[in-house]
Amino acid sequence: MADLQALRADIEGIRIEDNEKIVQQKSRDFYWYSPVLKERLEAVTGDLVVSPKTEAELIRVLKACYRHGVPVTPRGTGTGNYGQAMPLSGGVVLSLADMNEIREIAPGRAVVGPGVICSDLDKAARFESGQEMRMHPSTAHTATVGGFIAGGSGGVGSTRWGGLRDFGNVIRLRVVTMEEEPRALELTGEDLHKVTHAYGTNGIITEVELPLTAAYDWVDVIVAFDDFMEAATYANALGRQDGILLKLNTVVAAPAPFDYFKRHQKFLKEGENTVICMVAPQSLDAFLAFTRREGGRIAFNRSELAEEDLRGLPVAYELAWNHTTLRGLRVDPAITYLQVLYPFPDQLALVSKLHEMFEGEVIDHLEFVRFDGDITCFGLPMVRYSTEERLDEIIETFNREGAPIFNPHRYTLEEGGMKQTDEIQLAFKREADPRGLLNPGKMIAWENPDYDFDSGAVWLFKGLQKAG
Amino acid sequence: MADLQALRADIEGIRIEDNEKIVQQKSRDFYWYSPVLKERLEAVTGDLVVSPKTEAELIRVLKACYRHGVPVTPRGTGTGNYGQAMPLSGGVVLSLADMNEIREIAPGRAVVGPGVICSDLDKAARFESGQEMRMHPSTAHTATVGGFIAGGSGGVGSTRWGGLRDFGNVIRLRVVTMEEEPRALELTGEDLHKVTHAYGTNGIITEVELPLTAAYDWVDVIVAFDDFMEAATYANALGRQDGILLKLNTVVAAPAPFDYFKRHQKFLKEGENTVICMVAPQSLDAFLAFTRREGGRIAFNRSELAEEDLRGLPVAYELAWNHTTLRGLRVDPAITYLQVLYPFPDQLALVSKLHEMFEGEVIDHLEFVRFDGDITCFGLPMVRYSTEERLDEIIETFNREGAPIFNPHRYTLEEGGMKQTDEIQLAFKREADPRGLLNPGKMIAWENPDYDFDSGAVWLFKGLQKAG
Repeated sequence: MADLQALRADIEGIRIEDNEKIVQQKSRDFYWYSPVLKERLEAVTGDLVVSPKTEAELIRVLKACYRHGVPVTPRGTGTGNYGQAMPLSGGVVLSLADMNEIREIAPGRAVVGPGVICSDLDKAARFESGQEMRMHPSTAHTATVGGFIAGGSGGVGSTRWGGLRDFGNVIRLRVVTMEEEPRALELTGEDLHKVTHAYGTNGIITEVELPLTAAYDWVDVIVAFDDFMEAATYANALGRQDGILLKLNTVVAAPAPFDYFKRHQKFLKEGENTVICMVAPQSLDAFLAFTRREGGRIAFNRSELAEEDLRGLPVAYELAWNHTTLRGLRVDPAITYLQVLYPFPDQLALVSKLHEMFEGEVIDHLEFVRFDGDITCFGLPMVRYSTEERLDEIIETFNREGAPIFNPHRYTLEEGGMKQTDEIQLAFKREADPRGLLNPGKMIAWENPDYDFDSGAVWLFKGLQKAG
Repeated sequence: MADLQALRADIEGIRIEDNEKIVQQKSRDFYWYSPVLKERLEAVTGDLVVSPKTEAELIRVLKACYRHGVPVTPRGTGTGNYGQAMPLSGGVVLSLADMNEIREIAPGRAVVGPGVICSDLDKAARFESGQEMRMHPSTAHTATVGGFIAGGSGGVGSTRWGGLRDFGNVIRLRVVTMEEEPRALELTGEDLHKVTHAYGTNGIITEVELPLTAAYDWVDVIVAFDDFMEAATYANALGRQDGILLKLNTVVAAPAPFDYFKRHQKFLKEGENTVICMVAPQSLDAFLAFTRREGGRIAFNRSELAEEDLRGLPVAYELAWNHTTLRGLRVDPAITYLQVLYPFPDQLALVSKLHEMFEGEVIDHLEFVRFDGDITCFGLPMVRYSTEERLDEIIETFNREGAPIFNPHRYTLEEGGMKQTDEIQLAFKREADPRGLLNPGKMIAWENPDYDFDSGAVWLFKGLQKAG
């Protein structure tokens, strides 16, 4: 490809990787969680991986790609689950992992490059100021901050702070456009929504200002219940305890805890349902009193175990969010998963109904979170996969019952269901990426001029038109 | 009184005050907020004020009082509003203000004597560790920590953390009993409820362990609206923004802001309704974007004003909670107030209905808080007082409409309506205060053996029997 030769010449001095195997590897994420995407995205690969170290280098890359009409798909470390950073049209995979400077840590906030690993930021913030990120994915040890914001929605900490969609959970993003002369824009307030969870289709994040919160030596606790709905009811009530400071409140239904959490197996009984929590030390006493009152069995309390008992045990959040499915897949590669919202105030009734409807086929996994001011839960149920048709049937049933699915078996923004596109966002893309070179194929509204914005669906990241 | 002579001899060396004027002054609180209590409690006074400096001294005082049958009414600095610490039967007013040691400040928690002034603890915690109390009364500069726990229910910070009634907002209380040989008990978990908001009827607090949270340079902001329900709707929606960190979210209806907040008057317009907020600096940008979207006028933003403009201005929380009424009383001594809960999820409809019913007679004041996991509001409406009968009529109307009143015109635990007594608490009092000498006359269940515990009322501090 002539374009690529010329491109390479234009960006000389900037780190490039063209080893086919490595490029393919860096063109992938955890899309194989989905048997549907596994089939559809298997052949996807970029042509080159380019890794700028500074915004100036990045701008050189974008200018060159623009000139030569080469698609650019930005990427952190590829911990997404549905092809967010997979280059459907080939071209350049733009790794931002080397733009990993921690520029400022101040009371309540940090300024970082997009490539900083979440746990590295947490480590630095804790060391310098006793602080940490409000929320991070369960892949904190590998995921980048920029990738989390561009491809994620929330995670460990959302039980306290809500999601990335919420005002205040991202303070400022610096974004470079894909134009003949790329511009650097500073986005704040509502404008952040142009870029959050947009998979890099609207510009490349070069700096992130995000809020920090007090770091504590969170205590991992697992509470066990014989009955699944008892566990869910407990977790729901626990989430409503305003004075008990939690970072995680996860329900995993039997048989997953005993069968999939191998390293914790010795603490668990077969057939138990678990609630996995991270509790602030100053809240532990109240947490235990509350749990006693509600009749939960304390199966695991990290603060009471000796160093040697803890050796090799993953931290609690590595049993939760997307790690639950990961642990399941290691034991049973035939499972997959869904993403669902159980809307307040009917969350427990919905959970119970759907749990019964799919007993044996769906293994429930709930994440209790704050959502628009209420305590409710997302589900990341594990599904014993048979066919795509059956999976769609299950999805339809959840939707019909009032528990909307954010389909992790689709790679477009709109079909994934988390990101609502609208005229304002489309207008922003026209401005920021006039040639449509940023992560092509991910935004239906761009590809299809007749796309109907008003599907009536539930969106996590709402369009700007309604909000504005 | 012979008893007192003997008592004085027994506690020689411990600080005593017997000047009649000073004893009377130290026998009072802000009971005069209520014209009803003003009349009823005017004559109340103790015989002596005793101020132990240590738990050992305190135990000597209690032993002596027990021996001589002298009532003991514990007190911090007397910032209560309904006679919590007024000695109905005379005797010893036990000032705990000198037991004001700050014993430990650690990540997430502090251990202090009961007499520490809230703002002194905050100052020390901020200086040592960048922390502060989760919540404090609007009288933080004069109120003691022990008095807050024994006589208060929540305050500035409850918008984030709920109330003192909630698991986790007090960690541990050390309490000395009123027996022949006083014992020191360490209470945690549910047992804390035996002592919180019990006016010292169940034992004397000698040490408090309480949670701390990250301190920020909170930004005082006042948002103005022409319409009262627009202000209330905004504050409710603001409270539901999970990513915007607030410490205060107070609605004050016209004409109070312009008429009563004299020092802020230059920032306000006559007839405006205000929402008074304390916003974490890292959330200010999001707060302003949200406020713009909701159409509020930023009347006051401390972060944008010069030092000289701020001179003499009280901090935001000194316009809120019980300070709102205080400022009203300074302008119009004929007003009084009520305390009301607007239960979720109907809070806005209830507020609107009752606002219209009493327009001109009741000036609304709402405090948006977390309450059992929901965002809702308390009211501390100011009332243009005419007669006790009319006040009772207003109270009845609120109760009938589903907005329960915690009557601040009553001095007993039960009639005030915040504290539910029950057999377990009564049994604890029998054990901890067998002669009934602690703050006599405040617990109906103790005075009246036929007291019916099951009134069906709403209680902030629930009995232990149901919960257990």
